Amino acid sequence: MSGYRDLHVYVEELERHGKLIRISSEINKDTELMPLVRLQFRGLPEEERKAFLFENVTDSNGRRYAMPVLVGALAASRDIYCLGMQCEAGQLLEKWTQAQLHPIPPRLVEKGPVHEVVLQGDELLKEGQGLDRIPIPISTPGFDCAPYTTMSHWITRDPETGLRNLGNYRGHLKSSTRLGIFVIPTQDVGLHWQKCRQQGKPLQAALILGCPPHLSYTAVAKLPGLDELSVAGALAGEPVELVRCKTVDLEVPAWAEIVVEGNITTEYVEPEAPFGEFVGFIGERRFNPYFEVSCITHRRDAIYGAILSQFPPSESSKIRQMAYEPVLYKHLRHHANIDGVLDVAFHESGGAWHYIVIQLKKTNPSQPMQALNTAVGFDPTIGKIFVAVDETVDPRDPEAVNWALCYFMQPHRDMLVVQGRTGFLDHSGSPQGETDIFPFPSGNSALLIDATRKWPYPPISLPRKDLMEHAMKLWEREGLPPLRLKSPWHGYNLGKWSEELEEEAEMALRGDYFKTGEKLAQQRRRVE
Amino acid sequence: MSGYRDLHVYVEELERHGKLIRISSEINKDTELMPLVRLQFRGLPEEERKAFLFENVTDSNGRRYAMPVLVGALAASRDIYCLGMQCEAGQLLEKWTQAQLHPIPPRLVEKGPVHEVVLQGDELLKEGQGLDRIPIPISTPGFDCAPYTTMSHWITRDPETGLRNLGNYRGHLKSSTRLGIFVIPTQDVGLHWQKCRQQGKPLQAALILGCPPHLSYTAVAKLPGLDELSVAGALAGEPVELVRCKTVDLEVPAWAEIVVEGNITTEYVEPEAPFGEFVGFIGERRFNPYFEVSCITHRRDAIYGAILSQFPPSESSKIRQMAYEPVLYKHLRHHANIDGVLDVAFHESGGAWHYIVIQLKKTNPSQPMQALNTAVGFDPTIGKIFVAVDETVDPRDPEAVNWALCYFMQPHRDMLVVQGRTGFLDHSGSPQGETDIFPFPSGNSALLIDATRKWPYPPISLPRKDLMEHAMKLWEREGLPPLRLKSPWHGYNLGKWSEELEEEAEMALRGDYFKTGEKLAQQRRRVE
Repeated sequence: MSGYRDLHVYVEELERHGKLIRISSEINKDTELMPLVRLQFRGLPEEERKAFLFENVTDSNGRRYAMPVLVGALAASRDIYCLGMQCEAGQLLEKWTQAQLHPIPPRLVEKGPVHEVVLQGDELLKEGQGLDRIPIPISTPGFDCAPYTTMSHWITRDPETGLRNLGNYRGHLKSSTRLGIFVIPTQDVGLHWQKCRQQGKPLQAALILGCPPHLSYTAVAKLPGLDELSVAGALAGEPVELVRCKTVDLEVPAWAEIVVEGNITTEYVEPEAPFGEFVGFIGERRFNPYFEVSCITHRRDAIYGAILSQFPPSESSKIRQMAYEPVLYKHLRHHANIDGVLDVAFHESGGAWHYIVIQLKKTNPSQPMQALNTAVGFDPTIGKIFVAVDETVDPRDPEAVNWALCYFMQPHRDMLVVQGRTGFLDHSGSPQGETDIFPFPSGNSALLIDATRKWPYPPISLPRKDLMEHAMKLWEREGLPPLRLKSPWHGYNLGKWSEELEEEAEMALRGDYFKTGEKLAQQRRRVE
Repeated sequence: MSGYRDLHVYVEELERHGKLIRISSEINKDTELMPLVRLQFRGLPEEERKAFLFENVTDSNGRRYAMPVLVGALAASRDIYCLGMQCEAGQLLEKWTQAQLHPIPPRLVEKGPVHEVVLQGDELLKEGQGLDRIPIPISTPGFDCAPYTTMSHWITRDPETGLRNLGNYRGHLKSSTRLGIFVIPTQDVGLHWQKCRQQGKPLQAALILGCPPHLSYTAVAKLPGLDELSVAGALAGEPVELVRCKTVDLEVPAWAEIVVEGNITTEYVEPEAPFGEFVGFIGERRFNPYFEVSCITHRRDAIYGAILSQFPPSESSKIRQMAYEPVLYKHLRHHANIDGVLDVAFHESGGAWHYIVIQLKKTNPSQPMQALNTAVGFDPTIGKIFVAVDETVDPRDPEAVNWALCYFMQPHRDMLVVQGRTGFLDHSGSPQGETDIFPFPSGNSALLIDATRKWPYPPISLPRKDLMEHAMKLWEREGLPPLRLKSPWHGYNLGKWSEELEEEAEMALRGDYFKTGEKLAQQRRRVE
């Protein structure tokens, strides 16, 4: 197997699978484009969501852009994500785990399509050149103060260790040669920036706008201690090809669409944002570094790609969900060694961030709480509600999880509140909102709930499997509408059932229930 | 307005609205009937669910029944329930509240269709007569030990006060003249039974099988201190017509389909159940009273009606949901006087029993906790998870509620665990399961969560309303698939937003975002 060479090959694949909508009518990138794609996230079931390719993009001043805009291509749905990952949904956990365990380092090559067009120096300042060439849409029109880059992968290097990082951070478009960047101190780019600041020099950076999907998927994943480009290579099954940048000492994917090179100042900060955030609220303005462009390179036929984020579910929460689930799964299974863990579900309703369900077939009774404690310890910013469920409960179905909360746990016995949490983008901690990330004195909190079954229960109250299967044939015979069955769709034993009851149920199917009635009459007792 | 005269008129109404599926093929009531209807509860969206009328019913011994079987007619979906209630969904809370506040007592009449056929004495014992005439299906084939009546409304009278009760309790078919009955001590029928036992006499009862829907809806509601028949009259807008029974001192609806008269012994109990329960598990066998039939009366063209219960969602959880929501709403608004309460949602995922969401537009900050405390105090058996949400959160959408849990509350601050709860049908309290209803020493517990917003937040991160409305026109122009929009579908202010930011957002829509970029550059600060 080999990965998609570039975004173009992948777009063809999306189209072949009926997952791409081409819009050839004129669309205003700042007022129309994102609202149109947004509708499918508020109004269609996930499996009907598509990627959109806008081929005729304009802005409010009537400008036309040569580049088309692609939205939703990475993760408008789980199906699309699987196309990008080149595997079935059931293989995702294992594919991610193997790629982390066996990374393939990138390979340096002499040249690549990303250098077909090179713009630097005064060229960047000409009308409609520089960042202005690129049709960057407004994500949350009516609230955002500017267009932001969103499929926006930054490569920086640790000035002490030389280790590279590839991370996805928004870029606030401020001029044709300047982007604001939200540098989070605890993330790699924040650490690199701090170290450069201490050394009194700017942080060199290359911004990748559009590239093969496996690179994007690793850019948004949490991969502590790993080189994202090497994990991306492992996902693709072959090394990522890199070329040297023109004006900074960094390498970038040879088959990227657009690369912006430059320096992130460490001397000054300026106000950045507001920008609609994935948690469901507009992110607040704060002082942040900015990036000064020294060079833009791109393919002649470059596609500009954007990720639809903001209120969940969104492309951003889907991509985060698909990337975080395998990372936490691997942590629980391989590092904490909890062999009962079957699945991890980051619910998109919480932005694939704060509502996390762990499914176990527990091999000892302490595993659910062990898994919950390990999960809450994984990252102080990720997760507010953690629920452990059994193998009989679908961890991705909020109604199934709520059913488990109702009937498999007691709040006074099976819950734990953990304080000392950091509230990234969480306004609920204090009236100061998202900037007060550790409200005095003990921070934010999380809730751990063990909603696994503690002892035998009677069977699930649905008809027996063979009878439901027979009913499906009748259903078809009667020409009734197509079914999408949810789990569970038949009854089964949960440990508390007897041979006698099974025999009586069998007799009832044969119409012999009055015999059981007679037997029960024999067992009559006088009321005390 | 007047109510449906009988079940026949209502079935015609269902058919007129495309809500009835007639099955004319032969169907085995014990192995095929309920599994077929069940499929729609596991495999179709709620709005596609229908009532089923089986016109050609047989059993495993090849017997044919004269009566057709109707399932799902009361509450296969909210739409069907609204047809039965003769109002729009938005009017349900108020219609129920008014009926409770202004009941209309029933009226005694001389005769009614329910007495067209009368069977008593030895006739009941003939082959295929007695209860055997009635095509009672097995609800959970493969687990239930017999057919059970389910649209099964019992009329009894308090032997001391003479007050009547109409309640829905299953009947376990044990012989052609004997039904087991699950008598719950805390319910009215249990109190009546206890009092008769103390007086050394049996409890007279009339079992109504099939009647106009407003009677069924009140039979399953919690209406403490009210005469259900009078509330049913108020729902219908006219008195319920009653006729005297033939062999017991009770009155029954003249337009019922079938009535079974008899006595519930207070001297003996015998094993009853298993029966698939609405919480999702098979209800366990226990010692219970039984009902000895003295007379069966029915219409010549009687329809036998059954309610599909068991694993939620089911018709039973829908009917309970629709009946309990207005009762708790009325309690919170009218008796506890919490004027901020807007809506109450009993989630079907918890069997419309243990997961309850209260929506408020709070008029003071203590209202959410007051509402939660009042709700948990309403009934010691009902509710394990109680969540309060704002008017901006859809209380019926589990994903919207989970989003509120993630971003509007802190577990250490906004939660309360309440012990001393009774665990009706809840196996999670103790290894003894559902029979240990108050595990030693402090019973079961409930969790109250205030997930309302405590202070101003930035706006919802979705495009502004006018832009989303414009996008809907584009969506239609491009011929994209029909939308069912979920709330919220556009951004709006939650109190933390400034005129300056609004102006910048407006400028960005005009393409003037570089002006804002310049302004922000002027506010640059040196890094400390």
